[in-house]
Order: sequence, then structure tokens, then C-alpha cells
Amino acid sequence: MTGRAAPTCLALSGGVGGAKLALGLSRVLPPEALVVVANTGDDFEHFGLLICPDIDTVTYTLAGVSNTETGWGRAGESWNAMEALAALGGETWFRLGDRDLALHLERTRRIAAGESLSAVTTDLARRLGIGACIVPASDQPVRTVVETPDGPLPFQHYFVREQCRPRVTGFRFAGADAAMPSPAFAAALAGGVSAVVICPSNPFISIDPILAVPGVRQALRDCGAPVVAVSPIVAGRAIKGPTAKMMAELGLAGGAVEVARHHRGLIDGFVLDRSDAESAAAVEQLGIAALVTGTVMETLDDKTRLAEEVLAFARSLGAR
Amino acid sequence: MTGRAAPTCLALSGGVGGAKLALGLSRVLPPEALVVVANTGDDFEHFGLLICPDIDTVTYTLAGVSNTETGWGRAGESWNAMEALAALGGETWFRLGDRDLALHLERTRRIAAGESLSAVTTDLARRLGIGACIVPASDQPVRTVVETPDGPLPFQHYFVREQCRPRVTGFRFAGADAAMPSPAFAAALAGGVSAVVICPSNPFISIDPILAVPGVRQALRDCGAPVVAVSPIVAGRAIKGPTAKMMAELGLAGGAVEVARHHRGLIDGFVLDRSDAESAAAVEQLGIAALVTGTVMETLDDKTRLAEEVLAFARSLGAR
Repeated sequence: MTGRAAPTCLALSGGVGGAKLALGLSRVLPPEALVVVANTGDDFEHFGLLICPDIDTVTYTLAGVSNTETGWGRAGESWNAMEALAALGGETWFRLGDRDLALHLERTRRIAAGESLSAVTTDLARRLGIGACIVPASDQPVRTVVETPDGPLPFQHYFVREQCRPRVTGFRFAGADAAMPSPAFAAALAGGVSAVVICPSNPFISIDPILAVPGVRQALRDCGAPVVAVSPIVAGRAIKGPTAKMMAELGLAGGAVEVARHHRGLIDGFVLDRSDAESAAAVEQLGIAALVTGTVMETLDDKTRLAEEVLAFARSLGAR
Repeated sequence: MTGRAAPTCLALSGGVGGAKLALGLSRVLPPEALVVVANTGDDFEHFGLLICPDIDTVTYTLAGVSNTETGWGRAGESWNAMEALAALGGETWFRLGDRDLALHLERTRRIAAGESLSAVTTDLARRLGIGACIVPASDQPVRTVVETPDGPLPFQHYFVREQCRPRVTGFRFAGADAAMPSPAFAAALAGGVSAVVICPSNPFISIDPILAVPGVRQALRDCGAPVVAVSPIVAGRAIKGPTAKMMAELGLAGGAVEVARHHRGLIDGFVLDRSDAESAAAVEQLGIAALVTGTVMETLDDKTRLAEEVLAFARSLGAR
């Protein structure tokens, strides 16, 4: 990755929404010009396996094997291991499909054998036919902890087991202090970035864990490329996931403009959906350029069209 | 398990052949009167999961869900995880069915949480509806190492990956020196044994690892119950597995009588198949009582009939 000549588009992504735009970007950029940095704050160990939900959703999405109905896991999946696990009295709150299990088994094996999460992630993506580079934000564990009135919850316990029911009072990113950007992430930052795209992912639990890695926020500011975020909030609601609920619980006004405010100081441009057009002025009052367009990505055409618009928007903002 | 009042039949078993007789015993004895001690020399870690092939074959067989064609794994199994693993470039030499994976996941999770292999084995068997007690020979790892001219091989590398091709020069049971009999095994030995049945399993790699646990051989001699072994060799060949090949490579004459000789000093009786009837005299010359009957177990009737005959034979030998 070092010595990369061509400027690279860096896409920061969480799961489903972010992965959709990452797929669009992967269709409009040459493979060597895209590095997708996946959030690892959702990662956890389960049954001794290292599970990386956002890496996996990005990987499955770019490989064309994702389950677009659930937003996680693989299409056409079977659940025989889970059914057998239920019969054994095992924990089934985190659904692991039979084919999906293979990824967790192989990743866990290779990491136990001494490979880095980056190396395994990039190689498994390549084996699934993905040209773009997918890397974790960091090879060191950075784990999102959700603060609630009843105490802290590991992210997946909050997100999947408790179905986001507990009220959120804040977040911690355990391990972030000791983490470093993954080598390909760092190399891309050092090798010339054409644009930074913050995909439409939850700012608190998908993007902030990436930004919590020491040096990342500063490097994004210093890389000279425009930083553009796409709102995960459309018409006041998250397309998927608990973003809007979290914002309400955190005492934030909600709405797309609040996401722009959250990223203030980092982003140069913000992309809002047409249904939030009236918020564009408030975004611009924050000193952030606003682009209003259709941000809901249902078809592949939606994804490539939005990717092209976001890249053109970034180019229009030029080098800072 | 302590304070068990009724005398217990102790069955020592490896995989497929042993499990067949264990199933027969489970059908003719009350649940509380049978403890099946499974070999753990085949156990290994794979993808970070603890896999216990003989425990699993005994468990699946007694639960009525075993694959009787392969002799391992579950009936009606699917292989989606393995197929996905192959696409990821993972190791597929050890075939893990989707439903079978659940058992390895749950066992690994529970052991990592601090439970003993005994506790997990007995509980998972109960959840699969098994009345008899199934326990490992030891809760401490005892791993069979196969000595070959090219150096030692972990058992599953020899057995599955290398398909038993390397020439065997001997065996070691790594960890045996530090192992103890599992609590239920020890309690059964201490609480009154009615019969010890050495199931028709490979003497070198299925029974010897059990006997290698310090104190087991002596405890079996001291328990006062007759010890009866059923030959895994029929008409000079193993019903399944490499027993005959190993005997040839170890310079042993081969044949059922060689198995009886191997167990000399431990067993009081030896059960031969009718096709080996001419060997009965040689067995008796070793000071071991011989019973000639049909030992090939195809149907459930075969298994229960042989179980009854073996128990009657043991009774006829009386307390030593």
C-alpha cells in the first residue's frame, strides 16, 4: 500500500447505509483509487470467533452476496447451525448464518495464526472478487461501549441482544487510546487523498469509533482533500438503525443538520436528501457546504448516481 | 455422580464401532446404570473450536442423529459453511457440517466460560435426549500423537488430513501424565462397577489414550468388576478405520487375538466374531476367556443383542 501513486478516495463506512454508498463508489472508481475504511467499534468475540459486522457488511455488499432485506449477512443464507445451537440451549440472539460462519471461522483462524485484521480483511475481500481495498480503521481492538442509565453495555449487547431498547447517555471506544490507524488507512492518508467520503452511517457508533483512533481526525484534516459526509438521516429519520433514537436520547435536536453539526470542524461538505432541503441553509450557516440530492439508495443505479454526485461535490470543494 | 448406589456398567469407547455398542448398551441398561467413557485422544483445536470427534460420535449415535454412512457427523447434514470456507481459501480437510458446527461452537463457548469438558459433554448429551451419562476420559487434554518415520503428527493430521497414509511407528499421548480421570469416570469406578466393557474400538488410538490417564488402568483392575473387550478386528480386518494397517506397521501379527494380547493383564474376557472362531483357543491360552458370537453391528437389533451377550458374558465371568 505504501508508495501508492494515484490519489485515493477514502470512504469511511459503518454497516448497511455506508456499505451501499461504498458499493456505488466501487462501481465508479478504479479499484486502486478506493480504500473503504470500515468501522470496527461493532466488533466482538462470540463463541470464540472474532465477528466484525461492519467489515462483513461492506465486504458482502461489494462482493454482491449481501442480504439486502436484513441489511446484514449473506443472501440465500441457511440457518442450520443456529437451529442446532438452539436445540443445544446455546445463545442465538446474534444470528450467524451457515455461510457467514465460514468467514468468522477463517478470520479467527488466521488472526490466531498471527495475521493482522487488515491483512485478513483485504485478502478475504480479494477472494470474494472485490477490487477495492477494504480495511478496518485499526488492527487494534476499538470497541464501542454504550453508556446507559443502568450501566455500560458492550455494543452488540445493546444493539442486537437488547434491540437498542436501553436509553443511551453516551459512548466510549474502549481500546481507542492504544490503537493506530490500519497500515493501508495510514498509507492512503500519506499517499495522496483525492476525497474523503463519510458514508451515510451513524455518526456516534459508526464514524466516531473510526475518528477515535489517535491521529485519524488530524490526518483527515491535514490530508488536503475535501471531506464530504452524506447524511444518514432522511426526513428526520434514519433509513436504518437507531441514529434518530440516539439523537433524541442525547438531547440533540435531531434531523440531518445535527449530523452536520456533529462533524463540524472535520467536514467541508454535507449531502442532504431532498426531503431535508429546508435544512441546507442551517448546514451552510455552520460553514459547511451543502448539496441537496436524492440520498435514498434502493437500486444499484441510485448508489452509483449518488457516488458520482458526492465525488463531483467533493471536487467542486477543491483542496482546502 | 458421587454416592451412586447402583452398580454401573462402564463402557470405554472410541468413535464409530465403539459408539454402536454403546448405543446397544444404552438400550438394554437403565440410564443410571451406564457411563460411557469416550476417548479424547482424537480431540483437537480447529478454527479455535474444541472438536472432540469420539465424544461427538458417541453423543450423536446415542441421540439417534448420527450419520451412519460416514461414521461421523450428523445425518441429513448441510455443508454450506464448508462451501463458503472453500471460497475463502480456508482449510476444508476436516469436514464440519453446519449442524455439527453448533456443537463445537457451544462447547468451546462453555469451556471458555469455565465449565469442564465433562460438564459440557454430559449436559449437551442430556439436551439431545440421552439418558446415559457420557463423559470424556479426562477433563485435561490428552492428545494422541502418531509417530511416523517423518516425525510426529497430531492425530487428526494423520487420521483425516493424511488419510492414515503415513507409516506408524508408535504413539504418544501428550498431556496424559498431567491428566486425571474425569469426575464421573472416577466416581463410577469408586461407586461400584458391575462390568467394564471395552467397546470394539482401535486399541492403540481409542482405548490406550483412556488407559494412559494415570490411575485408570489400576482402577479398572481394582474395581472388582469383570473387564470384557469386544474385538474391533473381524476376519483379520477392521470394520472401519486403520487398526489392521497399524498392526501390520507395528510388526504385530494382526488378527483379533493380537488385540486380546494387547489388552492382556487388563481384560478377563474377549469377544470375537464368528469369522475368527479359530482364534478363540489362542485367546484362552492368554488366560483370557473367549466368547464367539456375531460382532458386526448393522441394525439396532444387532447392537442390543451384542450388548446383552457382552453383559451376560461379563456376568458369567463374575467378580475377579
